[in-house]
Amino acid sequence: MHSFNELYQLFNTTLENEIALIRQREPLNLYEPVVYTLDMGGKRLRPVMLLMACDLFDANFDDALPAALAIELFHNFTLLHDDIMDGANLRRNNETIHVKYSSNTAILSGDAMSILSYEYINKCNSPHYKEIFNQFTNTALKICEGQQYDMDFEMRSNVAVSEYLDMIGLKTAILIATSLKLGALIGNAPRHDAEALYHFGFNLGMAFQLQDDYLDTFGDTVSFGKNIGGDIVANKKTFMLLKALELAKGETLKTLQNLISSSNFDNNKKIEQIRNIFIELGIVALTKTKMEEYYQMSIHFWEQINVDILKKKPLLDFSKSIMKRNN
Amino acid sequence: MHSFNELYQLFNTTLENEIALIRQREPLNLYEPVVYTLDMGGKRLRPVMLLMACDLFDANFDDALPAALAIELFHNFTLLHDDIMDGANLRRNNETIHVKYSSNTAILSGDAMSILSYEYINKCNSPHYKEIFNQFTNTALKICEGQQYDMDFEMRSNVAVSEYLDMIGLKTAILIATSLKLGALIGNAPRHDAEALYHFGFNLGMAFQLQDDYLDTFGDTVSFGKNIGGDIVANKKTFMLLKALELAKGETLKTLQNLISSSNFDNNKKIEQIRNIFIELGIVALTKTKMEEYYQMSIHFWEQINVDILKKKPLLDFSKSIMKRNN
Repeated sequence: MHSFNELYQLFNTTLENEIALIRQREPLNLYEPVVYTLDMGGKRLRPVMLLMACDLFDANFDDALPAALAIELFHNFTLLHDDIMDGANLRRNNETIHVKYSSNTAILSGDAMSILSYEYINKCNSPHYKEIFNQFTNTALKICEGQQYDMDFEMRSNVAVSEYLDMIGLKTAILIATSLKLGALIGNAPRHDAEALYHFGFNLGMAFQLQDDYLDTFGDTVSFGKNIGGDIVANKKTFMLLKALELAKGETLKTLQNLISSSNFDNNKKIEQIRNIFIELGIVALTKTKMEEYYQMSIHFWEQINVDILKKKPLLDFSKSIMKRNN
Repeated sequence: MHSFNELYQLFNTTLENEIALIRQREPLNLYEPVVYTLDMGGKRLRPVMLLMACDLFDANFDDALPAALAIELFHNFTLLHDDIMDGANLRRNNETIHVKYSSNTAILSGDAMSILSYEYINKCNSPHYKEIFNQFTNTALKICEGQQYDMDFEMRSNVAVSEYLDMIGLKTAILIATSLKLGALIGNAPRHDAEALYHFGFNLGMAFQLQDDYLDTFGDTVSFGKNIGGDIVANKKTFMLLKALELAKGETLKTLQNLISSSNFDNNKKIEQIRNIFIELGIVALTKTKMEEYYQMSIHFWEQINVDILKKKPLLDFSKSIMKRNN
């Protein structure tokens, strides 16, 4: 069994080696943005979770590392294309690809990254190879579906909170769930444990995305790595905004609707005013309750993993750390 | 053994059924553009060639049809994204997706199509499954590389004819070659025949692309399905333009350079003048000679396929028909 730090180092070293290989590929203008994107860093939480899941069973890293690379590349591909679609200019404190290079570069380098992720999947020689490929492909498609719902919601005035939760399930939670399940499959885990890991990851992913939305509005630019208030400026129909629209009445509702329907506001003023409405309506507490609900559900599934508690505890510790929890 | 028409019908019926299934997927805004793209028609030459290659050996259509669908979806995905990058507004006499819907829709629906193609690959149960997956993925990546070179060339003034030929090899010929090879692999063909089919397809693809470039300048809009002269307007460094730049001297060279370096020209006038220069320099004849060279090479590899001549003749007939040849 390996410590979290060992797995994190193992993945990072492997990724560095792969980045060095990708850097040598031609044409340069296709692969340089791929390298730039991967070099931006990031928490690497999905690939490390895949390795942790695998390490609970047969720690077959020869197969788990390519799968972990595939997950990380695919995740970065979705960020790259999402940034074009969202018009985002900053990612992890760096200029986004379509700003630094061009939209065309971002489209094509993203396409290449998506295909590269399949090149890594193809390096797995697990007996569960077909199921791994299938799970990866289904998840990839669901992430596209989630992004489409996200964009659809921007055009709709009547999005329900439940629709939002379904959307982040597709766009975010499923990839974390799949990372853990792939690790389990590669480790030849019993079916029941692979499913428990999937649901642990799914619920953790939901909690994590709600936290991300919260930080987009109430975090700080440096530690968050993105401009704060981006969701508010873009009128993103997050859990917080949808809850606020559900709960606001009278003058508050009017002000809120006015703020999100007009483009005549100074961005900083708009962020400030909407933040105040969120606080006034108790949205912060509601968001934290919802996060807690998903987090507790993830623990419930973690408990169902039939592995010695000492062995599986690092997974729980890791989930606490990404949720910035002490307990 | 099946006739060309039988295979064409078989593929089209299968595709129609799949389009009906894709039409039912949600969200609608993600899958409707996929259906629209597939419904535009097209020659379906890659999937039909895959089926023809498979039919030369063990005609295992349960595995060949999903692979043929994967190839057709992937091909259409590349057209969809290329149209955004090239700013093309017409494809097969229809509005392109980014014009009819939006760039964001075209990006995301393209991403989904690319992943859907893997969903079809995953339905193959051939014993050569891993090699099929590998060949498909390598080819997909090379197509992206070809598109990048194509875009790079637009920014460079010193592109060699050989570089152009390498580029169309990546962007076009390899997918035709791979279609035939996948058909052979699924048909459990001997290694030598699978390779002969690959090279037959590659050279045919080169001839086909040179013909496509020729028709873009000298064809007619209705039968070509695209605006004529699009390559000239966009200063695309095609075989014809590069040859012209290589051969033009004195006043003709000056006029040509002037025409491609300035944007002050009326498009129709520019098309007319460049066409005249091509004719004056004998570029049409040179292009046809180059096409013939690749075509003869494709026949050379066709001859190397160790299959009864009556059985493999439809493949030659088909290649003649797409090259609009009587002999």
